[in-house]
Amino acid sequence: MAKTRKPPRPKAETPKGFRDYFGAEVSQRAEMLGAIAAVYHRYGFDALESSAVETVEALGKFLPDVDRPNAGVFAWQEDAEAEKPGDWLALRYDLTAPLARVYAQHRNDLPSPYRRYAMGPVWRNEKPGPGRFRQFYQCDADTVGSASMAADAEICAMLADCLEEVGISRGDYVVRINNRKVLDGMMEWVGLLDANNPETNANQRGIAMRAIDKLDRLGLKAVQQLMQGGRMDESGDFTAGAGLSFAQAAWIGGVLGAKRKTNALTIQRLRELMVESARGREGVTELEEIAGLLAAQGYGPDRIVIDPSVVRGLGYYTGPVYEAELTFDILDDKGNKRQFGSVAGGGRYDDLVKRFTGQEVPATGISIGVDRLLAALREKGRMQSAEHGPVVVTVMDRERMADYQGMVAELRNAGLRAEVYLGNPKNFGNQLKYADRRNSPVAIIEGGDEKARGIVQIKDLILGAQIAQDATLEEWKDRPSQIEAPRGALVGKVRELLAGHGLLDARGGYA
Amino acid sequence: MAKTRKPPRPKAETPKGFRDYFGAEVSQRAEMLGAIAAVYHRYGFDALESSAVETVEALGKFLPDVDRPNAGVFAWQEDAEAEKPGDWLALRYDLTAPLARVYAQHRNDLPSPYRRYAMGPVWRNEKPGPGRFRQFYQCDADTVGSASMAADAEICAMLADCLEEVGISRGDYVVRINNRKVLDGMMEWVGLLDANNPETNANQRGIAMRAIDKLDRLGLKAVQQLMQGGRMDESGDFTAGAGLSFAQAAWIGGVLGAKRKTNALTIQRLRELMVESARGREGVTELEEIAGLLAAQGYGPDRIVIDPSVVRGLGYYTGPVYEAELTFDILDDKGNKRQFGSVAGGGRYDDLVKRFTGQEVPATGISIGVDRLLAALREKGRMQSAEHGPVVVTVMDRERMADYQGMVAELRNAGLRAEVYLGNPKNFGNQLKYADRRNSPVAIIEGGDEKARGIVQIKDLILGAQIAQDATLEEWKDRPSQIEAPRGALVGKVRELLAGHGLLDARGGYA
Repeated sequence: MAKTRKPPRPKAETPKGFRDYFGAEVSQRAEMLGAIAAVYHRYGFDALESSAVETVEALGKFLPDVDRPNAGVFAWQEDAEAEKPGDWLALRYDLTAPLARVYAQHRNDLPSPYRRYAMGPVWRNEKPGPGRFRQFYQCDADTVGSASMAADAEICAMLADCLEEVGISRGDYVVRINNRKVLDGMMEWVGLLDANNPETNANQRGIAMRAIDKLDRLGLKAVQQLMQGGRMDESGDFTAGAGLSFAQAAWIGGVLGAKRKTNALTIQRLRELMVESARGREGVTELEEIAGLLAAQGYGPDRIVIDPSVVRGLGYYTGPVYEAELTFDILDDKGNKRQFGSVAGGGRYDDLVKRFTGQEVPATGISIGVDRLLAALREKGRMQSAEHGPVVVTVMDRERMADYQGMVAELRNAGLRAEVYLGNPKNFGNQLKYADRRNSPVAIIEGGDEKARGIVQIKDLILGAQIAQDATLEEWKDRPSQIEAPRGALVGKVRELLAGHGLLDARGGYA
Repeated sequence: MAKTRKPPRPKAETPKGFRDYFGAEVSQRAEMLGAIAAVYHRYGFDALESSAVETVEALGKFLPDVDRPNAGVFAWQEDAEAEKPGDWLALRYDLTAPLARVYAQHRNDLPSPYRRYAMGPVWRNEKPGPGRFRQFYQCDADTVGSASMAADAEICAMLADCLEEVGISRGDYVVRINNRKVLDGMMEWVGLLDANNPETNANQRGIAMRAIDKLDRLGLKAVQQLMQGGRMDESGDFTAGAGLSFAQAAWIGGVLGAKRKTNALTIQRLRELMVESARGREGVTELEEIAGLLAAQGYGPDRIVIDPSVVRGLGYYTGPVYEAELTFDILDDKGNKRQFGSVAGGGRYDDLVKRFTGQEVPATGISIGVDRLLAALREKGRMQSAEHGPVVVTVMDRERMADYQGMVAELRNAGLRAEVYLGNPKNFGNQLKYADRRNSPVAIIEGGDEKARGIVQIKDLILGAQIAQDATLEEWKDRPSQIEAPRGALVGKVRELLAGHGLLDARGGYA
């Protein structure tokens, strides 16, 4: 009998473009999502968690970033049943398309208007790149069924509140608002949009809109090249342009640069520019209404400002569009200063539910890019990238495991994060290395000698590390990194030591 | 030119077996996950969030419930690249298989032992049924790299703590522990397991194990029929048996029923029964060690108990197995009392990482079925199924939207959940209907007359509903459901009213 060959071992790898998140990365994100959810909820929004899987039919083709060729979804076909071919299913690529499906499906049971928030992963079947993953978090709030500009104003105010709630200081962010109708008016004026034949020039219009969307990154000169014949970038790649004249491109530059010192002046300037376009003027009036509502609630242009250069790439917006940008500088990989850029965006989309019901349902909302926001807070140094580990009770005598478990039970009951070392206890050095790798602040030692004397050794690992770094410093002299304490004083002494390092929370716990 | 036919409208439906979760369902689950995470964290476990998508190769074939023919995963093939066929990817079906992959991939950077917790949705491509969905939440904690029974004892203690933390009272649950080695010893004794040739009789052994796993539901008599020739159920369906003799089946019944009044007596009885099996005796010794550690930490048999009837369906367990059961009665669909049953389970699996690395890595862990636990708390009446909605500021004069927005801003800044009605304000009745559908406790009204008098009307919707139900009650007489208050007293009066209904939290907020 021939020996059967063992199958090769599977590779221990995430699929390309996916990653795992560890420890503080996970808990900090959960904390941020919780903080944002609390703001959304205070504004009257209700939670919704739709299924991660949708039919391809229900999702539709609203994927943003149509200029990337391999943009797409992860999809598969259900098994056929009784000669009926199986449905095509897919992972959701955002939280807005599922909202439209949910609203259409449950509209008779939902309040109208329906304010909802949702948070969770979304998936994009795109070519992964540095820092670009195929699964990431979104955190959305939308109001479905209200045509009022008060709904848009409220969402912008809420967005500003969210950013401050998670730790972005006032002055370090700005929410910028524009209106698609103004952009439409602009496109009408240069002949790239015919309200009666929206399909005409759709391609060139797309080129122009995507160029404007890159204004921040490329600058006005490059955008104007893209409006005209096209542009060659530094690498020599050529991007075809929208085919406008120099004068048309310059006029567009004038609209994009219409932001003035106050919202009132910006609106006045826009009204002059949109004098020929009814749709454009409608957009200006909407912006004026939003600006008025925000001012009445005390949201000044230091937080929320009308800015005609905002586009938002998504094709489905029909009215106001908004974007939150972080305005502080960070250093890029080459050590150059650059602005962190956009962390949230949204707008009004009045046609999304219509796909299902045939009736137009006005809707408006935002999506906060939680992962980018977390990255920003870390780069700004406002968030620790590692957390301290548990208090580690070492095992000197493996026969006395029950004693050690009793110690951690005491510590935990007092609200202090603690554990017994559960590896092989033979090599004591390994136990301290373990505590080190966990970034533990304190280790507890109780050998036979200590047991007999009714005491425990408490090792201050933070102080120990500092002493190891610079053992000659005078100030360490009277602060030994290991102290003896009576067994009964264990919890009190550990708490004292954690307090000394500023690690206790308001309730005296260490979580 | 022929008119193009419009494509049919997409159906607004979740795929079969999926569902959406609304409002309190979502926030209560988030709260429960947070409470469990806090317990896991206090025990020294670190958070891990692995990607929802894995390669089929890495996931392997460890799906439980192999007796269901269409059990499976949602899988699809990546696009081919440069003549290389694309990898097969799949949605994770549990959180344990991804943990094994993560540990194998990152083992050089992770502490050893590695304690981690994880929570999130998992997906099963199974035939959906009533109350059975293809996406559901798991909430796991595992210790990888420790062979110590202290790791198992700790996990059982932590499981008991979690259940109490989320609102299951002591006495309403029990964590039951058994050991696969005892079950192996039992199978050896009846000839269904040969330690040197584990493939022999695998099929009959599977039948026997699955039968034991159903002991709770079917009772001992049915299980003994399944041990022997087989069993016909009430519907007439016949299930083939494991082919044991009457005496063998009776002996197995004796092992399964070996639970005695105390853990010590159970262990003594098991030791007698396992006298012929080295593996069985090893299992008994492990159980004895776990029982000792738990007793030392104060976890008595009212919370955690050795029970030889526990099996756990998963094939990969190799040592201790545990299960948490809720012991209170609920009424089933037919109004009959039944026990709620299992809400969590786990055990030791020492072979799962070996698939990747070739080295055996001891591991043990639990999975809490959060959705079942939520259902249990709702059935027990310990959790409200609906929450109260926001304070609703109605719109009497749409020109004064900024005033109304100012009111909600005041209320929110005071920590009270509030919103302006954003639908069409023309029909005031619709506004009150909306507040009603939101289950709002309070509505605010300020028309032109109120504005001129500097007051607002505050409508107590809870009291209003009570009065509407029984308008004759004496006690309502002096409690009008609508009061006038000076505009400046708005926040104070609303807070007073919410407090009267017991709706304020400890910090005086209404979230």
